[in-house]
Formats: sequence, C-alpha cells, structure tokens
Amino acid sequence: MLREQHIKQLERLVGAENVVTDNASLLAYSYDSTAQFQAMPDAVIAPKNTNEIAEIVKWCNKHKIPIVPRGSGTNLCAGTTPLSGGIVLLFKHLNQIMEIDEENLTMTVQPGVYTKKIHEVAEEIGLFYPPDPGSMHISQIGGNISENSGGLRGLKYGVTKDYVLGLEIVLPTGEIIRTGGKLAKDVAGYDLTKLYTGAEGTLGIITEAILKLIPKPETKQTMLALYDDLEKAAESVSAIIANRIIPATMEFLDRHTLEVVEDYARIGLPTDAEAVLLIEQDGAPEIVQRDMESITTLCKKNNAFQVTLAASEEEASQLTAARRTALSALSRLKPTTILEDATVPRSEIAKMVRAIGKIAEKYDITICTFGHAGDGNLHPTCLTDVRNQEEMIRVEKALGEIFETAIALGGTITGEHGVGAMKLPYLHLKTGEAGIQAMRNIKKSLDPNNIMNPGKMFSMTKESVVENK
Amino acid sequence: MLREQHIKQLERLVGAENVVTDNASLLAYSYDSTAQFQAMPDAVIAPKNTNEIAEIVKWCNKHKIPIVPRGSGTNLCAGTTPLSGGIVLLFKHLNQIMEIDEENLTMTVQPGVYTKKIHEVAEEIGLFYPPDPGSMHISQIGGNISENSGGLRGLKYGVTKDYVLGLEIVLPTGEIIRTGGKLAKDVAGYDLTKLYTGAEGTLGIITEAILKLIPKPETKQTMLALYDDLEKAAESVSAIIANRIIPATMEFLDRHTLEVVEDYARIGLPTDAEAVLLIEQDGAPEIVQRDMESITTLCKKNNAFQVTLAASEEEASQLTAARRTALSALSRLKPTTILEDATVPRSEIAKMVRAIGKIAEKYDITICTFGHAGDGNLHPTCLTDVRNQEEMIRVEKALGEIFETAIALGGTITGEHGVGAMKLPYLHLKTGEAGIQAMRNIKKSLDPNNIMNPGKMFSMTKESVVENK
Repeated sequence: MLREQHIKQLERLVGAENVVTDNASLLAYSYDSTAQFQAMPDAVIAPKNTNEIAEIVKWCNKHKIPIVPRGSGTNLCAGTTPLSGGIVLLFKHLNQIMEIDEENLTMTVQPGVYTKKIHEVAEEIGLFYPPDPGSMHISQIGGNISENSGGLRGLKYGVTKDYVLGLEIVLPTGEIIRTGGKLAKDVAGYDLTKLYTGAEGTLGIITEAILKLIPKPETKQTMLALYDDLEKAAESVSAIIANRIIPATMEFLDRHTLEVVEDYARIGLPTDAEAVLLIEQDGAPEIVQRDMESITTLCKKNNAFQVTLAASEEEASQLTAARRTALSALSRLKPTTILEDATVPRSEIAKMVRAIGKIAEKYDITICTFGHAGDGNLHPTCLTDVRNQEEMIRVEKALGEIFETAIALGGTITGEHGVGAMKLPYLHLKTGEAGIQAMRNIKKSLDPNNIMNPGKMFSMTKESVVENK
Repeated sequence: MLREQHIKQLERLVGAENVVTDNASLLAYSYDSTAQFQAMPDAVIAPKNTNEIAEIVKWCNKHKIPIVPRGSGTNLCAGTTPLSGGIVLLFKHLNQIMEIDEENLTMTVQPGVYTKKIHEVAEEIGLFYPPDPGSMHISQIGGNISENSGGLRGLKYGVTKDYVLGLEIVLPTGEIIRTGGKLAKDVAGYDLTKLYTGAEGTLGIITEAILKLIPKPETKQTMLALYDDLEKAAESVSAIIANRIIPATMEFLDRHTLEVVEDYARIGLPTDAEAVLLIEQDGAPEIVQRDMESITTLCKKNNAFQVTLAASEEEASQLTAARRTALSALSRLKPTTILEDATVPRSEIAKMVRAIGKIAEKYDITICTFGHAGDGNLHPTCLTDVRNQEEMIRVEKALGEIFETAIALGGTITGEHGVGAMKLPYLHLKTGEAGIQAMRNIKKSLDPNNIMNPGKMFSMTKESVVENK
C-alpha cells in the first residue's frame, strides 16, 4: 500500500500532473477486458520517457511496490489487473513512431503507439506489419509485444514475436538495456528480445521496439465456404494445407456465432450453415487467382454446399469486418462473455470443436466457437453471467475440461491471449511443474523482489501452484 | 578432472562401449572448427536416449562435472571446445527423424540428424526446411539449434530459430521438460523454445525438436551481377529491397574471394570484378520470372557491368555450390583461417566492407570478405598463421576493430556463428554490462553449478569479463 509520502515521491519523479490517485481513476484501472478479475491500484502514473520509467522502477524495487505496465487494457487474461495493488504504469506519453527505415524495412516505435496506426503508416508506403490481433483498432503495440499477440493472419505470417527485432527494456532493477537491432541475424547472447516478447510484463518494462516490416502484398481475395457439417469444414482446411497452399487467413465460425454476428452486422451472412470458413489469400495477383481457384475446388470436393468469392473489395472487407465483430456481437447476448483460446495442432480442430460441444452440453452452458482454423487457434466463447454463482462453477469446470482436452490433443491452454492471472492455475498442464520451476527461476533471477506484474503467469511459490490446481 | 571411479560410474549409466577415454579419441574432441582453441576433455560419451542423458546430467550436476554437448563440431566460435575439461556428449545414438507430419507441416527430429538429411527428406514430399548454414552437409540439427544457425536464405526465410516450434530439453538439474508443440500459436509461459535455441548448450541439453516446414518453392532462378566497384553492388542491394523485392539469397563476394573460389572450383567465374552479387529468387514461376527481370534492370541501373542469368539448373547449382566452397577455398591458402561474421543493418554494408578493407590495410593482414549481403551478415575472413605470434597480435587487434565498427554501425559481433569462447571478450560491446548481467542471472538460475558448457558466451563473474576486455 502506497502512503502519502510515497505519492509525493512519485510526483517528484514524473510531475504531479502524471500521478493519479482519485478513486474514480483508480477504479477505471482496476480491471481490464477480462471478466471476474478486479483489484484497485494505489496509483496510476504516466511517465514521460524511458529515464523516468527507470527511476520509477528503481524506486519501486527499493520499496517493493508492484508495477503493472498497461497499454489499452484489451487483454483477455487479466494480464493487467493490479492484483497486488501498487502502480499501474501508462504509456500515453510514449506514443511516437520514432522512425521508419525503408532500406532496412523496420519501424521503431514507442509502446503507446496504437497497433492500427502501425498498419496504416506502413501500408501508406507499400509496407506491411502483419500481426492483426482482434483488438488492433484500440490496442497498443507495447501490450501486443508483452502478450505476443496473434491475429487472423497467423497461419501465413506468424505472430507479433516474428516481427520484433529489437527492444529497449527497463530491467526490474532499473537498468536500461537494448536488445537486437535492425538485424536479420543476431546471435550475440541469449535471445532476450524473444524472451521479453510475451513475458506479460513480468520481467521488466518495454520502452521501445524495432519492428520488422515486409513488402505489402499486392492484392487480396476473400471467400466464404459454407458447410452443413463441421467435419467437412475441418477436412477442407486439411486438404488446402495438404495441397501446399498457405492462405493468409482461414477463419472458422460455428452456427451459433454466425447467427449472432449476422444479427449484429446485418450483411446477409448465411445462417443456415453449421460451419463457415472465411478464407483470404494475398500476394501477387496471378498467384492469388490460382490459389483461390484451387481452394474453391478443394472446398467443393470436401462438400462445402456453397462457395462464394467476394465480388468486390468492399464486400471482402465487410466479411472480414463481420468476423472481427464476433466478440462484440457475442458479448451483447449475456452479461458476461468469457473468450477462451485453447489451441491445438491444425489436424485436431474437428476433434477439438466436437469436444467443446460435448463439454458445453455436459455442463449445460452456452459456448459459441469461432477462431483461426488455419493455425488451430480456437475461441470457444462462453456466454454467462458472473452473478449466477451456480452457473459460474459449471463454467469453471467446463473451461478446465477444455484446457485438458486441448493439451491431450497436443495443444496449449492459450494460443494468443496469454496466461495472466486467468490461466495461471492451468499453466502446469502445458509446461509441467519442472517447466514452471524453470520459468520461476528466470523470473526470480531478473526480478528478485517480484515487483513486475506480480501474480501473473505462475505463482512464485510451489505451494500456491499446488493450491491453484 | 574425472577419476577412475567416475568413469566406472559413467560406464554403468550408458554402457562401457559408449564411454571413451583413450588419448587419441580425447584429442579428436579437444577442438572444433575454430582456430586457436583447444582443451582436452576427460571423457567422450554417447548416451542412447533422453533418459540416459538426464541421468548423466544429474550425475554431473551432483559431482560438478562440466558437460559439452557436441554435434559435428562445425561451429566457428569455439562453442564446443571443452575448455574446462569434463565430458563431451555426442548424439550419435540420437540420430532419428521421429516423424513427418504433413498435415501440420512439421518434422520431429533427434539432435543427431544431419541438417542435409532434413532438407532431403522434406523436399522429397514437396516440403521445405529453409535454414541452410554453410556447414549443412555435415552439421547436425542439434548443433544448428543450439547455435541458431543462419545461412544463405536468411533474408527471405529467416534462421533456425524461425523453424523451431518445440523442444524436449534436459535441464541442468536433470529434469526433462517439453516446450512448444505442433502449434502456430502458443503463449503459455515464457518462450523457453526460443531461449534455448541459440543458448549454445549453456542452459541444458536439447534432446528432441519439432521443426516447422513450409511448402517447397515451385521453382528457382539464379543470377550473377558483376561490379567494378563495391559501392555499386551495395546500391543494387538497397535498390532491390527498396523496390519491395525480397530475393531468396543475395550473396556478396569481393575480388579476393572470387579469385580464390575460381581457382578452387574452376567453373569460369569472372575474376575481373571488384564485387559480385549472386542472387537467387524462388517461388511461383511467374513471380520468379518477374522478380528476376526487375532485379536485372535494377542491377544494370546501378552500374553492374555484367548481369547473367544461369541458363540451366545445373549452371545455377554450380554457382551456388561455388559460393558454398568459399571457406574451403580460402582455407587452402594459409595455415589458419579465421572466419568472422560481424553483421550490420543491410543499409550499412558498403560502409562495413570499406571499413574492413581499411582495417586490413592498417594492420597489414589479408582479409577476404564474402557473405549474405541481403541480411547484412558479412564474413570477413582472415588468412593467417597461428604460429606467427607477431601477426596474431595484429589479427586480434584487427578483429576487435571490426567488431567495434559493426557495433558503431548498429550491428552485432556475430550474426550466425555464435559467441562461444571466441567472442566472449566482445559480447559486452553488443549487450552492455547490464545485458550480460541479465544473461548471467538467467544462466545461474537454471544452471546453479555451471556445468553446462562452462566458459562460453560470457564469464560467470564480473571480474573476468573486465579482464577479458
């Protein structure tokens, strides 16, 4: 708990106008986009530069005050909930694109830049930043990096980690280091760039990043394939890959989700299908043309009852936009939406979706499933109400079974949302206790006072992990 | 130092036939492909499986005996020299391709599989494993993973790290963990897969890996562009990238190297050029065709005095093979060849090559330079003789200046060869002391007794780092 004198010291470090402690503000930063997790911070501060951040971290390390770095708070794993109180640290003053280097194909950014802005600025000059998490219109790149955000284009283009070339980091003890660079190859020491990307703010604070850009694909085409049976959709996905075609996106929506999205977006989506694949290919026009023809043939061969190519760019972006509204559309139906992202090898998608259906039935809860079929990253979304305690117990049990099923199929408990506080009790399913212990050792070695986003990813004591099981 | 009783214990663990202690054998494993580094191990052992490796590691951890995991020993950073004695651990019994999964596009391999074999097996079924380090005909994948090997195709396809999806690891305390999986997306905890890839065997032993495969490019074309001036070659590289074309390879050779390679390979390479670019593009035929036309135009525009497209596949592979002989060809000239891999942002290649020339002149030593121009990864190669102590002092000074220049240009001390023992004294130039301290903390936390490949990458004490400067 911060005392009056502490606040005064923080104000001296960053200016009084950048320290907020009134209740209304603290309340606004007591939660993120994750249901069921809330805790009040002691202060919200907005430093103006890396040096101020380093000073804050040193001060916090000395006084053992927790720090939770926070972008837009769009994460779905309670990754930025200040569970141990302390300071929520904002990046509103570190929101600049520092440089675009067209020769080395890089963009250097501060953590507070909006992801969408990065897309726009790159595309204006014929370049491309592929990671496109669902929240990209409002998410900040610092959050994307700390969560290693995925997105719809993961299958072909990879995730945020694949586009982070270098970082400036404030270590939990206050030193500032720089990792990587504008380099396609760099093996000078351990890969701290990749370790910190996806570390969920538990190992330090990222204050600058060098992102990799690629040439913008010349063209893009979009199609919808409708199925009366989930199995056939999954078989189409396998057939496309088996034919050595890697589409830019291959999105899956089940009937539930489709109905809800259509009800929300009203663009004439077919609601009579049991499953839909939304497929995009990008690249050189002749290749896109060829691939789309092959994909159409393969979908039909695998018994799609309808395959439609978007006739115009407008229609295409309407379809993609509709897919992107899935979470918003679903969250209108019930007071609480729990969006999961259990992920399996691509070959196991049909099994996983079927298992989710059975689990929903067993626990008598509503789960709509959509997600990135191409990379096995599914989003079973539970529509519920936290005030219904009896139902919440069933929801918890169902989610536990979903994670166990994903693991049994060679998958993971989280493909792109992160562990945070939400999946901490399940991490051992994926990594084993020895894996958690290795992570705990790394965390302890870099953050001896456990000030950086404590209580996220795993517990620092073996005992509490066992408790959490 | 291992005593007789220790050897007996090791023999009990893996069988007497898998423990070697005779002097001739120990001598064979006292060095790798790096000049100037040699030290005798106490024993060379070849365990038969992961469990045996775990038992060996537990035993070594208890007795504080160093372990140096070693593939084919092709590394160029003294990464597998047993500087503190102890055990050299071989993977000759772990040399199986465990599985090829065409649906998930993965190959699961043991560390002792030859890299070349992975290429062949993948390509037979229309798939592709892009990383192609210079040593790929004889290197083992375990070594590639531990060194995060690069290669000629780095610009377009990335390096080994980009193709490692999951690992089985024996931790320095003997526990066996599994990381990642057949997953395009996985954010369950710290990314140990990427941390261990490139950790040079200092954090544990990799006993299995899941590799990512991609569809094999349909076709490939190869061309040579000749320049009477280095600057023009570098400008061509920039112009190609500026035109949003990413070739599969863009290799650079200076006149020295060209002469030596032609003298060795005798395939009619032009030796009247000051600089040569060997450019390959792969992909769909129509795109390759289009790109090669654009590249030809751009090279001519940037004053290449000759641009030749390889007329046949045979001629193309002859050219690439000739480039691959560069190290062998150079090493015929003098008793000692020191191959460096200072790496800079692509935009700084001309500056770097010029600086290397000046440094060679200043210290009156012979340096030939070739390398991967597309990704800024240069291989200035010093031809010398370790027995000439006076010259070796000049060589050391020259290499130090090359590293400093690379860093000043925003580069790194090693792009793809690793730090090992060879570049340990220079690591701080890239990472800073705080960066090394972070790495040291991680190493200590996972390997408290410093048994895993000790004396590589960085010193475990601050003092000795300062000494090494």
